[in-house]
Amino acid sequence: MTQTAGSDLTRRVEDAIRRHIAGRCAPPRLGRAIEDAMLAGGSRVRPRFALGVALACGDDRPSLSDAAAAAIECLHAASLVHDDLPCFDDAAIRRGRPSIHVAHGEALAVLTGDALIVMAFQVLADVGDIAAERLPCMLAALSASAGVPRGLVSGQAMECEETADLDAYHAAKTGALFEAAGALGAAASGGETAVWRRVGARLGAAYQVADDIHDALGLGGEGKPTGQDGLHERPNAVSSSGMDGAVTLLRRHLDDAIDAIPGGDDADSLRALIREQTGRFLPAELAAQISA
Amino acid sequence: MTQTAGSDLTRRVEDAIRRHIAGRCAPPRLGRAIEDAMLAGGSRVRPRFALGVALACGDDRPSLSDAAAAAIECLHAASLVHDDLPCFDDAAIRRGRPSIHVAHGEALAVLTGDALIVMAFQVLADVGDIAAERLPCMLAALSASAGVPRGLVSGQAMECEETADLDAYHAAKTGALFEAAGALGAAASGGETAVWRRVGARLGAAYQVADDIHDALGLGGEGKPTGQDGLHERPNAVSSSGMDGAVTLLRRHLDDAIDAIPGGDDADSLRALIREQTGRFLPAELAAQISA
Repeated sequence: MTQTAGSDLTRRVEDAIRRHIAGRCAPPRLGRAIEDAMLAGGSRVRPRFALGVALACGDDRPSLSDAAAAAIECLHAASLVHDDLPCFDDAAIRRGRPSIHVAHGEALAVLTGDALIVMAFQVLADVGDIAAERLPCMLAALSASAGVPRGLVSGQAMECEETADLDAYHAAKTGALFEAAGALGAAASGGETAVWRRVGARLGAAYQVADDIHDALGLGGEGKPTGQDGLHERPNAVSSSGMDGAVTLLRRHLDDAIDAIPGGDDADSLRALIREQTGRFLPAELAAQISA
Repeated sequence: MTQTAGSDLTRRVEDAIRRHIAGRCAPPRLGRAIEDAMLAGGSRVRPRFALGVALACGDDRPSLSDAAAAAIECLHAASLVHDDLPCFDDAAIRRGRPSIHVAHGEALAVLTGDALIVMAFQVLADVGDIAAERLPCMLAALSASAGVPRGLVSGQAMECEETADLDAYHAAKTGALFEAAGALGAAASGGETAVWRRVGARLGAAYQVADDIHDALGLGGEGKPTGQDGLHERPNAVSSSGMDGAVTLLRRHLDDAIDAIPGGDDADSLRALIREQTGRFLPAELAAQISA
Protein backbone atom coordinates (compact mmCIF):
# COMPACT_ATOMS: atom_id res chain seq x y z
CA MET A 1 0.00 0.00 0.00
CA THR A 2 1.47 3.36 -0.96
CA GLN A 3 1.77 6.17 1.56
CA THR A 4 -1.07 7.99 -0.17
CA ALA A 5 -3.34 4.97 -0.09
CA GLY A 6 -2.56 4.51 3.62
CA SER A 7 -3.47 8.08 4.47
CA ASP A 8 -6.58 7.84 2.30
CA LEU A 9 -7.62 4.83 4.35
CA THR A 10 -7.00 6.75 7.57
CA ARG A 11 -9.08 9.68 6.36
CA ARG A 12 -11.87 7.40 5.23
CA VAL A 13 -11.96 5.67 8.63
CA GLU A 14 -12.06 9.01 10.47
CA ASP A 15 -14.80 10.32 8.18
CA ALA A 16 -16.87 7.18 8.64
CA ILE A 17 -16.59 7.37 12.43
CA ARG A 18 -17.50 11.07 12.55
CA ARG A 19 -20.41 10.60 10.17
CA HIS A 20 -21.93 7.75 12.16
CA ILE A 21 -21.59 9.35 15.61
CA ALA A 22 -22.91 12.71 14.39
CA GLY A 23 -26.23 13.59 16.01
CA ARG A 24 -25.80 10.87 18.64
CA CYS A 25 -23.61 12.65 21.18
CA ALA A 26 -26.36 13.56 23.65
CA PRO A 27 -27.39 14.53 26.27
CA PRO A 28 -24.60 17.13 26.52
CA ARG A 29 -22.39 15.67 29.26
CA LEU A 30 -22.61 12.14 27.95
CA GLY A 31 -22.10 13.48 24.43
CA ARG A 32 -18.80 15.09 25.40
CA ALA A 33 -17.63 11.87 27.00
CA ILE A 34 -18.55 9.88 23.89
CA GLU A 35 -16.64 12.32 21.69
CA ASP A 36 -13.65 12.06 24.02
CA ALA A 37 -13.72 8.28 23.82
CA MET A 38 -14.13 8.14 20.05
CA LEU A 39 -12.24 11.14 18.71
CA ALA A 40 -9.20 11.62 20.94
CA GLY A 41 -6.74 9.52 18.98
CA GLY A 42 -6.32 5.78 18.90
CA SER A 43 -4.54 3.54 16.45
CA ARG A 44 -7.68 2.71 14.41
CA VAL A 45 -5.92 -0.55 13.58
CA ARG A 46 -9.16 -2.56 13.67
CA PRO A 47 -11.28 -0.29 11.44
CA ARG A 48 -8.33 0.17 9.07
CA PHE A 49 -8.09 -3.61 8.80
CA ALA A 50 -11.86 -3.92 8.25
CA LEU A 51 -11.74 -1.33 5.51
CA GLY A 52 -8.59 -2.87 4.01
CA VAL A 53 -10.42 -6.21 3.80
CA ALA A 54 -13.49 -4.56 2.26
CA LEU A 55 -11.25 -2.97 -0.38
CA ALA A 56 -9.54 -6.31 -1.05
CA CYS A 57 -13.02 -7.77 -1.61
CA GLY A 58 -14.03 -5.08 -4.10
CA ASP A 59 -15.71 -2.45 -1.90
CA ASP A 60 -18.85 -2.48 -4.05
CA ARG A 61 -20.97 -0.91 -1.26
CA PRO A 62 -18.70 1.75 0.23
CA SER A 63 -21.31 2.81 2.81
CA LEU A 64 -21.44 -0.72 4.14
CA SER A 65 -17.65 -0.92 4.30
CA ASP A 66 -17.53 2.36 6.18
CA ALA A 67 -20.19 1.18 8.61
CA ALA A 68 -18.28 -2.04 9.22
CA ALA A 69 -15.18 -0.02 10.13
CA ALA A 70 -17.03 2.47 12.34
CA ALA A 71 -18.99 -0.25 14.16
CA ILE A 72 -15.82 -2.16 14.99
CA GLU A 73 -14.20 0.98 16.40
CA CYS A 74 -17.27 1.72 18.57
CA LEU A 75 -16.92 -1.70 20.24
CA HIS A 76 -13.18 -1.25 20.72
CA ALA A 77 -13.62 2.20 22.26
CA ALA A 78 -16.39 0.90 24.54
CA SER A 79 -14.14 -1.86 25.82
CA LEU A 80 -11.33 0.59 26.62
CA VAL A 81 -13.66 2.88 28.57
CA HIS A 82 -15.05 0.04 30.66
CA ASP A 83 -11.66 -1.68 31.12
CA ASP A 84 -10.26 1.56 32.56
CA LEU A 85 -13.00 1.79 35.25
CA PRO A 86 -11.98 1.65 38.91
CA CYS A 87 -13.49 -1.84 39.30
CA PHE A 88 -11.16 -3.15 36.55
CA ASP A 89 -7.79 -1.52 35.73
CA ASP A 90 -8.51 1.76 37.54
CA ALA A 91 -6.43 3.46 34.84
CA ALA A 92 -6.10 7.22 35.14
CA ILE A 93 -4.60 7.78 31.71
CA ARG A 94 -5.50 6.62 28.21
CA ARG A 95 -3.82 7.91 25.05
CA GLY A 96 -1.92 10.50 27.10
CA ARG A 97 -5.10 12.06 28.49
CA PRO A 98 -7.25 11.48 31.55
CA SER A 99 -9.32 8.34 31.08
CA ILE A 100 -13.06 8.78 30.64
CA HIS A 101 -14.01 8.07 34.25
CA VAL A 102 -11.36 10.48 35.50
CA ALA A 103 -12.41 13.26 33.12
CA HIS A 104 -16.18 12.73 33.22
CA GLY A 105 -16.91 10.70 36.35
CA GLU A 106 -17.65 7.04 36.80
CA ALA A 107 -21.37 7.20 36.00
CA LEU A 108 -20.80 8.84 32.65
CA ALA A 109 -17.97 6.41 31.91
CA VAL A 110 -20.26 3.43 32.44
CA LEU A 111 -22.84 5.10 30.19
CA THR A 112 -20.25 6.00 27.56
CA GLY A 113 -19.28 2.36 27.26
CA ASP A 114 -22.93 1.33 27.15
CA ALA A 115 -23.73 3.96 24.52
CA LEU A 116 -20.80 2.89 22.36
CA ILE A 117 -21.71 -0.79 22.52
CA VAL A 118 -25.21 0.09 21.34
CA MET A 119 -23.86 2.57 18.79
CA ALA A 120 -21.98 -0.21 17.02
CA PHE A 121 -25.36 -1.72 16.24
CA GLN A 122 -26.96 1.64 15.42
CA VAL A 123 -24.18 2.09 12.85
CA LEU A 124 -25.10 -1.24 11.25
CA ALA A 125 -28.75 -0.22 11.33
CA ASP A 126 -27.82 3.01 9.52
CA VAL A 127 -26.98 0.94 6.44
CA GLY A 128 -29.39 -1.92 7.03
CA ASP A 129 -31.44 -1.15 3.96
CA ILE A 130 -28.52 -0.76 1.56
CA ALA A 131 -27.83 -4.46 1.12
CA ALA A 132 -30.24 -6.22 3.45
CA GLU A 133 -29.01 -9.66 2.38
CA ARG A 134 -25.59 -8.89 3.87
CA LEU A 135 -26.95 -7.68 7.19
CA PRO A 136 -27.61 -11.00 8.99
CA CYS A 137 -24.01 -12.09 8.58
CA MET A 138 -22.64 -8.71 9.66
CA LEU A 139 -24.93 -8.60 12.69
CA ALA A 140 -23.97 -12.12 13.72
CA ALA A 141 -20.24 -11.41 13.43
CA LEU A 142 -20.42 -8.07 15.23
CA SER A 143 -22.57 -9.26 18.12
CA ALA A 144 -20.63 -12.50 18.68
CA SER A 145 -17.34 -10.60 18.80
CA ALA A 146 -18.60 -8.29 21.52
CA GLY A 147 -20.54 -10.58 23.81
CA VAL A 148 -20.58 -13.92 25.54
CA PRO A 149 -19.45 -16.69 25.43
CA ARG A 150 -16.41 -15.86 23.27
CA GLY A 151 -16.29 -12.11 22.65
CA LEU A 152 -14.79 -9.05 24.28
CA VAL A 153 -17.02 -9.17 27.36
CA SER A 154 -16.11 -12.82 27.96
CA GLY A 155 -12.44 -11.98 27.69
CA GLN A 156 -12.75 -9.26 30.29
CA ALA A 157 -14.77 -11.63 32.49
CA MET A 158 -11.96 -14.21 32.39
CA GLU A 159 -10.00 -11.74 34.54
CA CYS A 160 -12.65 -12.34 37.21
CA GLU A 161 -12.12 -16.12 37.17
CA GLU A 162 -9.55 -17.82 39.38
CA THR A 163 -7.76 -19.35 36.42
CA ALA A 164 -7.71 -18.43 32.76
CA ASP A 165 -6.30 -20.15 29.72
CA LEU A 166 -3.94 -17.71 27.95
CA ASP A 167 -5.08 -18.68 24.44
CA ALA A 168 -8.78 -18.49 25.26
CA TYR A 169 -8.26 -15.18 27.03
CA HIS A 170 -6.42 -13.60 24.10
CA ALA A 171 -8.86 -15.07 21.58
CA ALA A 172 -11.77 -13.42 23.38
CA LYS A 173 -10.12 -10.21 24.55
CA THR A 174 -8.34 -9.36 21.32
CA GLY A 175 -8.86 -11.99 18.63
CA ALA A 176 -12.64 -11.80 18.53
CA LEU A 177 -12.75 -8.17 17.41
CA PHE A 178 -10.03 -8.67 14.79
CA GLU A 179 -11.92 -11.71 13.50
CA ALA A 180 -15.08 -9.65 13.32
CA ALA A 181 -13.23 -6.84 11.54
CA GLY A 182 -12.16 -9.34 8.88
CA ALA A 183 -15.60 -10.92 8.64
CA LEU A 184 -17.46 -7.58 8.55
CA GLY A 185 -15.11 -6.05 6.01
CA ALA A 186 -15.59 -9.09 3.77
CA ALA A 187 -19.35 -9.32 4.30
CA ALA A 188 -19.77 -5.60 3.58
CA SER A 189 -18.29 -6.23 0.13
CA GLY A 190 -20.05 -9.53 -0.48
CA GLY A 191 -16.77 -11.40 0.10
CA GLU A 192 -16.09 -14.76 1.69
CA THR A 193 -16.16 -14.22 5.45
CA ALA A 194 -14.50 -17.44 6.68
CA VAL A 195 -11.13 -16.81 5.07
CA TRP A 196 -10.99 -13.19 6.25
CA ARG A 197 -12.08 -14.19 9.71
CA ARG A 198 -9.03 -16.47 9.85
CA VAL A 199 -6.76 -13.63 8.72
CA GLY A 200 -8.29 -11.50 11.47
CA ALA A 201 -7.77 -14.19 14.09
CA ARG A 202 -4.08 -14.44 13.25
CA LEU A 203 -3.65 -10.70 13.07
CA GLY A 204 -5.36 -10.44 16.44
CA ALA A 205 -2.97 -13.01 17.90
CA ALA A 206 -0.01 -11.04 16.52
CA TYR A 207 -1.43 -7.80 17.84
CA GLN A 208 -2.01 -9.26 21.29
CA VAL A 209 1.62 -10.38 21.54
CA ALA A 210 2.75 -6.94 20.33
CA ASP A 211 0.60 -5.43 23.07
CA ASP A 212 2.10 -7.76 25.67
CA ILE A 213 5.62 -6.78 24.56
CA HIS A 214 4.59 -3.15 24.69
CA ASP A 215 3.24 -3.54 28.20
CA ALA A 216 6.28 -5.49 29.45
CA LEU A 217 8.72 -2.91 28.03
CA GLY A 218 6.85 -0.10 29.73
CA LEU A 219 6.28 1.72 26.46
CA GLY A 220 3.77 4.53 26.46
CA GLY A 221 3.18 4.79 22.74
CA GLU A 222 -0.59 4.75 22.88
CA GLY A 223 -0.55 6.76 26.08
CA LYS A 224 -2.03 4.09 28.29
CA PRO A 225 -0.47 3.04 31.57
CA THR A 226 2.03 0.19 31.15
CA GLY A 227 2.92 -2.70 33.42
CA GLN A 228 -0.82 -3.31 33.81
CA ASP A 229 -0.56 -7.02 33.10
CA GLY A 230 1.95 -7.69 35.87
CA LEU A 231 0.06 -5.38 38.22
CA HIS A 232 -3.22 -7.20 37.66
CA GLU A 233 -1.58 -10.65 37.36
CA ARG A 234 -3.00 -11.04 33.90
CA PRO A 235 -1.68 -13.67 31.52
CA ASN A 236 0.99 -12.13 29.26
CA ALA A 237 3.08 -13.69 26.48
CA VAL A 238 6.30 -12.09 27.79
CA SER A 239 5.85 -13.37 31.32
CA SER A 240 5.04 -16.85 30.03
CA SER A 241 7.63 -17.13 27.18
CA GLY A 242 10.21 -14.40 27.83
CA MET A 243 10.93 -11.46 25.52
CA ASP A 244 12.70 -13.52 22.84
CA GLY A 245 9.94 -16.10 22.88
CA ALA A 246 7.33 -13.37 22.57
CA VAL A 247 9.08 -11.76 19.59
CA THR A 248 9.34 -15.16 17.87
CA LEU A 249 5.64 -15.75 18.57
CA LEU A 250 4.67 -12.35 17.22
CA ARG A 251 6.61 -12.96 14.03
CA ARG A 252 4.99 -16.36 13.57
CA HIS A 253 1.46 -14.99 14.07
CA LEU A 254 2.14 -12.15 11.66
CA ASP A 255 3.50 -14.48 8.97
CA ASP A 256 0.46 -16.71 9.51
CA ALA A 257 -1.87 -13.72 9.07
CA ILE A 258 -0.17 -12.61 5.89
CA ASP A 259 -0.03 -16.16 4.52
CA ALA A 260 -3.76 -16.51 5.12
CA ILE A 261 -4.60 -13.53 2.90
CA PRO A 262 -6.03 -14.66 -0.42
CA GLY A 263 -4.06 -13.64 -3.57
CA GLY A 264 -4.64 -10.62 -5.77
CA ASP A 265 -3.14 -7.16 -6.24
CA ASP A 266 -5.58 -5.49 -3.87
CA ALA A 267 -4.39 -7.86 -1.16
CA ASP A 268 -0.78 -6.69 -1.62
CA SER A 269 -1.77 -3.32 -0.18
CA LEU A 270 -3.35 -5.10 2.75
CA ARG A 271 -0.18 -7.13 3.41
CA ALA A 272 1.86 -3.94 3.47
CA LEU A 273 -0.70 -2.27 5.73
CA ILE A 274 -0.53 -5.12 8.22
CA ARG A 275 3.27 -5.09 8.43
CA GLU A 276 3.28 -1.34 8.78
CA GLN A 277 0.58 -1.28 11.47
CA THR A 278 2.16 -4.00 13.56
CA GLY A 279 5.57 -2.28 13.39
CA ARG A 280 4.04 0.89 14.81
CA PHE A 281 3.50 -0.67 18.20
CA LEU A 282 7.05 -1.79 18.82
CA PRO A 283 10.38 -0.02 19.32
CA ALA A 284 12.40 0.31 16.08
CA GLU A 285 14.77 -2.52 16.91
CA LEU A 286 12.02 -5.04 17.52
CA ALA A 287 9.97 -3.75 14.58
CA ALA A 288 12.95 -4.41 12.31
CA GLN A 289 13.18 -8.02 13.60
CA ILE A 290 9.49 -8.47 12.85
CA SER A 291 9.51 -7.08 9.34
CA ALA A 292 12.78 -8.78 8.32
CA MET B 1 -57.24 -12.33 26.88
CA THR B 2 -58.33 -15.37 28.85
CA GLN B 3 -56.42 -16.61 31.87
CA THR B 4 -55.12 -19.53 29.83
CA ALA B 5 -53.94 -17.33 26.98
CA GLY B 6 -52.21 -15.04 29.50
CA SER B 7 -50.32 -17.89 31.09
CA ASP B 8 -49.48 -19.30 27.65
CA LEU B 9 -47.94 -15.95 26.81
CA THR B 10 -45.95 -15.99 30.03
CA ARG B 11 -44.65 -19.48 29.34
CA ARG B 12 -43.74 -18.57 25.78
CA VAL B 13 -41.81 -15.51 26.95
CA GLU B 14 -39.90 -17.54 29.54
CA ASP B 15 -39.12 -20.28 27.03
CA ALA B 16 -37.89 -17.74 24.48
CA ILE B 17 -35.60 -16.08 27.03
CA ARG B 18 -34.14 -19.38 28.24
CA ARG B 19 -33.63 -20.65 24.70
CA HIS B 20 -31.77 -17.55 23.58
CA ILE B 21 -29.48 -17.24 26.60
CA ALA B 22 -28.66 -20.97 26.59
CA GLY B 23 -24.99 -21.59 25.80
CA ARG B 24 -24.12 -17.96 26.42
CA CYS B 25 -23.75 -17.88 30.19
CA ALA B 26 -19.95 -18.03 30.31
CA PRO B 27 -17.29 -17.81 31.67
CA PRO B 28 -18.70 -19.41 34.84
CA ARG B 29 -18.83 -16.44 37.24
CA LEU B 30 -20.19 -14.07 34.64
CA GLY B 31 -22.58 -16.78 33.50
CA ARG B 32 -24.08 -17.09 36.97
CA ALA B 33 -24.52 -13.33 37.19
CA ILE B 34 -26.24 -13.24 33.79
CA GLU B 35 -28.62 -16.02 34.86
CA ASP B 36 -29.36 -14.13 38.07
CA ALA B 37 -30.15 -10.98 36.13
CA MET B 38 -32.33 -12.70 33.54
CA LEU B 39 -34.03 -15.55 35.36
CA ALA B 40 -34.73 -14.34 38.91
CA GLY B 41 -38.22 -12.97 38.33
CA GLY B 42 -39.27 -9.72 36.79
CA SER B 43 -42.62 -8.58 35.46
CA ARG B 44 -41.77 -9.41 31.83
CA VAL B 45 -44.23 -6.66 30.91
CA ARG B 46 -42.17 -5.51 27.91
CA PRO B 47 -41.62 -8.92 26.27
CA ARG B 48 -45.25 -9.85 26.98
CA PHE B 49 -46.31 -6.68 25.21
CA ALA B 50 -43.95 -7.39 22.29
CA LEU B 51 -45.31 -10.90 21.94
CA GLY B 52 -48.91 -9.66 22.35
CA VAL B 53 -48.34 -7.24 19.47
CA ALA B 54 -46.75 -9.98 17.34
CA LEU B 55 -49.82 -12.15 17.97
CA ALA B 56 -52.15 -9.26 17.10
CA CYS B 57 -50.22 -8.94 13.82
CA GLY B 58 -50.58 -12.62 12.91
CA ASP B 59 -47.41 -14.17 14.41
CA ASP B 60 -46.50 -15.74 11.06
CA ARG B 61 -42.83 -16.22 12.09
CA PRO B 62 -43.02 -17.36 15.71
CA SER B 63 -39.22 -17.57 16.06
CA LEU B 64 -38.95 -13.92 15.11
CA SER B 65 -41.68 -12.95 17.57
CA ASP B 66 -39.91 -14.89 20.32
CA ALA B 67 -36.60 -13.22 19.49
CA ALA B 68 -38.22 -9.78 19.59
CA ALA B 69 -39.54 -10.52 23.09
CA ALA B 70 -36.26 -11.97 24.38
CA ALA B 71 -34.16 -9.16 22.93
CA ILE B 72 -36.32 -6.51 24.58
CA GLU B 73 -36.01 -8.24 27.96
CA CYS B 74 -32.20 -8.45 27.60
CA LEU B 75 -32.02 -4.68 27.24
CA HIS B 76 -34.37 -4.11 30.16
CA ALA B 77 -32.40 -6.45 32.41
CA ALA B 78 -29.12 -4.79 31.37
CA SER B 79 -30.47 -1.38 32.30
CA LEU B 80 -31.56 -2.57 35.75
CA VAL B 81 -28.14 -4.09 36.49
CA HIS B 82 -26.29 -0.91 35.51
CA ASP B 83 -28.83 1.43 37.17
CA ASP B 84 -28.30 -0.42 40.46
CA LEU B 85 -24.50 0.11 40.40
CA PRO B 86 -22.89 2.14 43.20
CA CYS B 87 -22.20 5.05 40.82
CA PHE B 88 -25.95 5.34 40.07
CA ASP B 89 -28.65 4.19 42.52
CA ASP B 90 -26.33 2.08 44.69
CA ALA B 91 -29.28 -0.25 45.19
CA ALA B 92 -28.61 -3.28 47.35
CA ILE B 93 -31.85 -5.09 46.53
CA ARG B 94 -33.66 -5.91 43.32
CA ARG B 95 -36.71 -8.19 43.10
CA GLY B 96 -36.29 -9.04 46.77
CA ARG B 97 -32.76 -10.38 46.27
CA PRO B 98 -29.29 -8.87 46.45
CA SER B 99 -28.67 -6.77 43.35
CA ILE B 100 -26.12 -8.08 40.88
CA HIS B 101 -23.20 -5.96 42.08
CA VAL B 102 -23.89 -6.95 45.69
CA ALA B 103 -24.15 -10.65 44.88
CA HIS B 104 -21.41 -10.87 42.25
CA GLY B 105 -19.21 -7.79 42.68
CA GLU B 106 -19.07 -4.56 40.77
CA ALA B 107 -16.80 -5.79 37.96
CA LEU B 108 -19.10 -8.67 37.09
CA ALA B 109 -22.13 -6.38 37.35
CA VAL B 110 -20.66 -4.00 34.78
CA LEU B 111 -19.89 -6.99 32.55
CA THR B 112 -23.35 -8.50 33.08
CA GLY B 113 -24.94 -5.32 31.80
CA ASP B 114 -22.53 -5.18 28.88
CA ALA B 115 -23.15 -8.83 28.03
CA LEU B 116 -26.92 -8.37 28.14
CA ILE B 117 -26.83 -5.30 25.91
CA VAL B 118 -24.85 -7.27 23.36
CA MET B 119 -27.04 -10.33 23.87
CA ALA B 120 -30.09 -8.42 22.73
CA PHE B 121 -28.39 -8.12 19.34
CA GLN B 122 -27.11 -11.71 19.39
CA VAL B 123 -30.73 -12.77 19.88
CA LEU B 124 -31.74 -10.83 16.76
CA ALA B 125 -28.81 -12.37 14.91
CA ASP B 126 -30.04 -15.84 15.95
CA VAL B 127 -33.06 -15.32 13.68
CA GLY B 128 -31.43 -13.03 11.12
CA ASP B 129 -31.77 -15.54 8.32
CA ILE B 130 -35.40 -16.45 8.96
CA ALA B 131 -36.91 -13.34 7.40
CA ALA B 132 -33.95 -11.19 6.41
CA GLU B 133 -36.21 -8.49 4.96
CA ARG B 134 -37.62 -7.79 8.44
CA LEU B 135 -34.22 -7.55 10.11
CA PRO B 136 -33.20 -3.96 9.19
CA CYS B 137 -36.33 -2.54 10.76
CA MET B 138 -36.00 -4.67 13.88
CA LEU B 139 -32.31 -3.79 14.29
CA ALA B 140 -33.03 -0.09 13.86
CA ALA B 141 -35.83 -0.13 16.44
CA LEU B 142 -33.90 -2.19 18.98
CA SER B 143 -30.67 -0.21 18.74
CA ALA B 144 -32.35 3.21 18.82
CA SER B 145 -34.34 2.26 21.92
CA ALA B 146 -31.20 1.30 23.81
CA GLY B 147 -28.73 3.99 22.85
CA VAL B 148 -28.21 7.69 22.31
CA PRO B 149 -29.63 10.24 21.66
CA ARG B 150 -33.12 9.08 22.72
CA GLY B 151 -32.90 5.58 24.18
CA LEU B 152 -32.36 3.99 27.58
CA VAL B 153 -28.75 5.11 27.93
CA SER B 154 -29.71 8.71 27.16
CA GLY B 155 -32.44 8.57 29.79
CA GLN B 156 -30.00 7.37 32.42
CA ALA B 157 -27.53 10.05 31.31
CA MET B 158 -30.15 12.77 31.87
CA GLU B 159 -29.75 12.02 35.57
CA CYS B 160 -26.17 13.29 35.19
CA GLU B 161 -27.31 16.64 33.73
CA GLU B 162 -28.09 19.64 35.93
CA THR B 163 -31.62 19.91 34.59
CA ALA B 164 -33.85 17.40 32.86
CA ASP B 165 -37.19 17.73 31.13
CA LEU B 166 -39.61 15.24 32.74
CA ASP B 167 -41.22 14.21 29.44
CA ALA B 168 -37.92 13.73 27.61
CA TYR B 169 -36.56 11.81 30.59
CA HIS B 170 -39.50 9.44 30.76
CA ALA B 171 -39.62 9.05 26.99
CA ALA B 172 -35.99 7.91 26.95
CA LYS B 173 -35.85 6.01 30.23
CA THR B 174 -39.11 4.10 29.85
CA GLY B 175 -40.94 5.01 26.65
CA ALA B 176 -38.19 4.05 24.24
CA LEU B 177 -38.16 0.39 25.20
CA PHE B 178 -41.96 0.11 25.16
CA GLU B 179 -41.98 1.76 21.73
CA ALA B 180 -39.35 -0.71 20.55
CA ALA B 181 -41.35 -3.60 22.01
CA GLY B 182 -44.34 -2.49 19.92
CA ALA B 183 -42.26 -1.91 16.81
CA LEU B 184 -40.32 -5.17 17.11
CA GLY B 185 -43.41 -7.24 17.83
CA ALA B 186 -45.08 -5.76 14.76
CA ALA B 187 -42.01 -6.04 12.52
CA ALA B 188 -41.47 -9.65 13.58
CA SER B 189 -44.92 -10.46 12.17
CA GLY B 190 -44.64 -8.23 9.11
CA GLY B 191 -47.04 -5.71 10.69
CA GLU B 192 -47.12 -1.93 10.51
CA THR B 193 -44.55 -0.65 12.99
CA ALA B 194 -45.57 3.01 13.28
CA VAL B 195 -49.00 2.36 14.79
CA TRP B 196 -47.65 -0.18 17.31
CA ARG B 197 -44.78 2.08 18.19
CA ARG B 198 -47.36 4.70 19.17
CA VAL B 199 -49.24 2.18 21.31
CA GLY B 200 -45.93 1.32 22.97
CA ALA B 201 -45.12 4.97 23.62
CA ARG B 202 -48.43 5.51 25.38
CA LEU B 203 -48.17 2.28 27.31
CA GLY B 204 -44.68 3.30 28.36
CA ALA B 205 -45.96 6.65 29.56
CA ALA B 206 -48.66 4.89 31.59
CA TYR B 207 -46.17 2.44 32.99
CA GLN B 208 -43.78 5.20 33.99
CA VAL B 209 -46.50 6.99 35.96
CA ALA B 210 -47.48 3.67 37.58
CA ASP B 211 -43.84 3.23 38.54
CA ASP B 212 -43.68 6.75 39.98
CA ILE B 213 -46.81 6.07 42.05
CA HIS B 214 -45.31 2.80 43.15
CA ASP B 215 -42.10 4.54 44.21
CA ALA B 216 -43.89 7.36 46.02
CA LEU B 217 -46.13 4.95 47.95
CA GLY B 218 -43.11 2.96 49.06
CA LEU B 219 -44.48 -0.25 47.58
CA GLY B 220 -42.06 -3.12 47.26
CA GLY B 221 -43.99 -5.23 44.76
CA GLU B 222 -41.11 -5.87 42.40
CA GLY B 223 -38.70 -6.09 45.31
CA LYS B 224 -36.68 -3.05 44.40
CA PRO B 225 -35.92 -0.30 46.88
CA THR B 226 -38.55 2.43 46.93
CA GLY B 227 -38.30 6.15 47.50
CA GLN B 228 -35.39 6.15 45.05
CA ASP B 229 -36.75 9.08 43.04
CA GLY B 230 -36.92 11.43 46.02
CA LEU B 231 -33.58 10.15 47.28
CA HIS B 232 -31.86 10.86 43.98
CA GLU B 233 -33.91 14.01 43.25
CA ARG B 234 -35.20 12.45 40.07
CA PRO B 235 -38.22 13.84 38.26
CA ASN B 236 -41.36 11.96 39.35
CA ALA B 237 -45.00 12.43 38.33
CA VAL B 238 -46.23 12.28 41.93
CA SER B 239 -43.83 14.97 43.14
CA SER B 240 -44.74 17.22 40.22
CA SER B 241 -48.54 16.63 40.05
CA GLY B 242 -49.49 15.08 43.40
CA MET B 243 -50.98 11.59 43.84
CA ASP B 244 -54.43 12.46 42.42
CA GLY B 245 -52.82 14.16 39.44
CA ALA B 246 -50.58 11.14 38.86
CA VAL B 247 -53.52 8.72 38.96
CA THR B 248 -55.46 10.89 36.49
CA LEU B 249 -52.41 11.03 34.25
CA LEU B 250 -51.91 7.27 34.41
CA ARG B 251 -55.54 6.67 33.45
CA ARG B 252 -55.27 9.07 30.54
CA HIS B 253 -52.09 7.45 29.21
CA LEU B 254 -53.62 4.00 29.55
CA ASP B 255 -56.80 5.02 27.71
CA ASP B 256 -54.63 6.60 25.02
CA ALA B 257 -52.64 3.37 24.65
CA ILE B 258 -55.75 1.25 24.37
CA ASP B 259 -57.40 3.69 21.97
CA ALA B 260 -54.32 3.55 19.74
CA ILE B 261 -54.59 -0.23 19.28
CA PRO B 262 -55.92 -1.08 15.82
CA GLY B 263 -59.21 -3.06 15.68
CA GLY B 264 -59.65 -6.82 15.41
CA ASP B 265 -60.41 -9.70 17.74
CA ASP B 266 -56.77 -10.52 18.34
CA ALA B 267 -56.31 -6.99 19.63
CA ASP B 268 -59.05 -7.50 22.24
CA SER B 269 -56.75 -9.91 24.04
CA LEU B 270 -54.03 -7.32 23.96
CA ARG B 271 -56.31 -4.64 25.43
CA ALA B 272 -57.18 -6.97 28.31
CA LEU B 273 -53.53 -7.84 28.78
CA ILE B 274 -52.57 -4.19 29.04
CA ARG B 275 -55.23 -3.38 31.66
CA GLU B 276 -54.30 -6.46 33.64
CA GLN B 277 -50.55 -5.76 33.52
CA THR B 278 -50.90 -2.13 34.52
CA GLY B 279 -53.17 -3.03 37.43
CA ARG B 280 -50.53 -5.40 38.79
CA PHE B 281 -48.23 -2.57 39.72
CA LEU B 282 -50.67 -0.64 41.88
CA PRO B 283 -52.47 -1.27 45.17
CA ALA B 284 -55.99 -2.70 44.67
CA GLU B 285 -57.77 0.59 45.37
CA LEU B 286 -55.78 2.51 42.76
CA ALA B 287 -55.95 -0.37 40.30
CA ALA B 288 -59.75 -0.26 40.56
CA GLN B 289 -59.74 3.47 39.77
CA ILE B 290 -57.61 2.82 36.72
CA SER B 291 -59.65 -0.01 35.27
CA ALA B 292 -63.03 1.64 35.99
